[in-house]
Amino acid sequence: MIVPFTKMQGIGNDFMVVDAISQPVYLNQAQISQLAHRNFGVGFDQLLMIEAPQHPEADFHFRIFNADGSEAGHCGNGARAVAKYVRQKGLTWKRELRLSTNTATMSTVFEDNGLVTINMGKPRFEPEKVPLRFAEQADTYMIDAEGIRYKIGAVSMGNPHCVLQVNDIVTAPVQKVGPILSQHSYFPAQANVGFMQVVDTSEIKLRVFERGVGETLACGTGACAAVVAGRLQNLLDEKVKVGLPGGNLWIRWAGKGRNVYMTGSAKVVFEGQIDI
Amino acid sequence: MIVPFTKMQGIGNDFMVVDAISQPVYLNQAQISQLAHRNFGVGFDQLLMIEAPQHPEADFHFRIFNADGSEAGHCGNGARAVAKYVRQKGLTWKRELRLSTNTATMSTVFEDNGLVTINMGKPRFEPEKVPLRFAEQADTYMIDAEGIRYKIGAVSMGNPHCVLQVNDIVTAPVQKVGPILSQHSYFPAQANVGFMQVVDTSEIKLRVFERGVGETLACGTGACAAVVAGRLQNLLDEKVKVGLPGGNLWIRWAGKGRNVYMTGSAKVVFEGQIDI
Repeated sequence: MIVPFTKMQGIGNDFMVVDAISQPVYLNQAQISQLAHRNFGVGFDQLLMIEAPQHPEADFHFRIFNADGSEAGHCGNGARAVAKYVRQKGLTWKRELRLSTNTATMSTVFEDNGLVTINMGKPRFEPEKVPLRFAEQADTYMIDAEGIRYKIGAVSMGNPHCVLQVNDIVTAPVQKVGPILSQHSYFPAQANVGFMQVVDTSEIKLRVFERGVGETLACGTGACAAVVAGRLQNLLDEKVKVGLPGGNLWIRWAGKGRNVYMTGSAKVVFEGQIDI
Repeated sequence: MIVPFTKMQGIGNDFMVVDAISQPVYLNQAQISQLAHRNFGVGFDQLLMIEAPQHPEADFHFRIFNADGSEAGHCGNGARAVAKYVRQKGLTWKRELRLSTNTATMSTVFEDNGLVTINMGKPRFEPEKVPLRFAEQADTYMIDAEGIRYKIGAVSMGNPHCVLQVNDIVTAPVQKVGPILSQHSYFPAQANVGFMQVVDTSEIKLRVFERGVGETLACGTGACAAVVAGRLQNLLDEKVKVGLPGGNLWIRWAGKGRNVYMTGSAKVVFEGQIDI
């Protein structure tokens, strides 16, 4: 079976995108993990399979597979890639799309400058929702770990985030402190740990230690969580540029009770065909 | 500029192969290192540019570029990929080819089973040729490092190799001892360090710590050097199967003064087109 595909990336998070609407494509877990291998296969962080919508509220459905072949529920960087792909390939001319995954449906807007904006939903702060083992909700918390006291923000963007402010993003102790806070007993489901340098009220630099993964080039929900946490501490404006190792995102949040909007790029790297 | 390419791999060493005969292709160092990036580009260990022969003794010329954009002189796994490519693409129907690089010309044979055999030339043993800081040439040498005495073979296959015999390839201390011996003062140009488990006289298992790189999936000259060193110690037959982490090679060596022949696979992974 020859499978045409498009290799894409969004600020360094890379994808093999397959149009499973125009052609029948069936891949099992072993085939997907083989395709994900960067020497023996195409190489990707996630495989995105674009399918016909499963309910009338969605324009497209997409399935997300990790490099080990397991299926994932949600991927913000992947949603930008899908929104870009379906327009570039002429599968739709709509600028505003509803994209469904196995766990969520999200709104995307194809912007005039070619960037894609995604409605990332409302952040949650209640300790039991993060989840965080504190009795009282607060904008910041003090956490002790290995003899050091950290001042953190705690936000759920569908997944748990811990956000620390640092003076210099380059020297931030991501490798050392990331795992400690990620697995801290205060976070019963572990946490993604963001290290945020506030450049000014409209710009931050961010590195994220993702739970169970380590530092990544680009964590979309981490960028949202950092801006939300920074705004709760009155450090940031409503619209903030976030510089991540893989590139920039622009996060917009009007305040408590409102949705977070994430704008960023998704780019075609190359077109390919593979015989599976 | 749209550049069509073929992604290939030979026992895990992976290549972007470009036909620069049928189309003009010019890439600078920055473009090559961008193409090599596994998230932002095609991703490869080496780029192979196939060009018209530069002298009548060669059928094809190929240039080899590392992932950082620098040009390399020689690559055994790459030569197999080139031999496979030019036949599969119909650039030649010859089964025996002479392939030139910037530093060497080598003979390749396309075998009936689809594998490719390369004449890797004659191994050298003289200490000044390896280079090795010993006065007298020997089949094995004793080297002391950090309080441990190692019995090694020392062979040049155009690059310096140090070969150790181990009882179990899985538990071989590649990460620990590899760097120590690679940078040992006895090897003034450093050495690739091979850890060889002799299964029987016709089969070894091998892991190689490549100088300046670390452990790799597949080192073609390392496989040659291990078999040569093993034969000098009367451990191996003339034809030996070498199991490397990335796959198998078959090495043939009749003895001192004779060429080493390496047989192995090269496979197309996928076809692609990239806009540069």
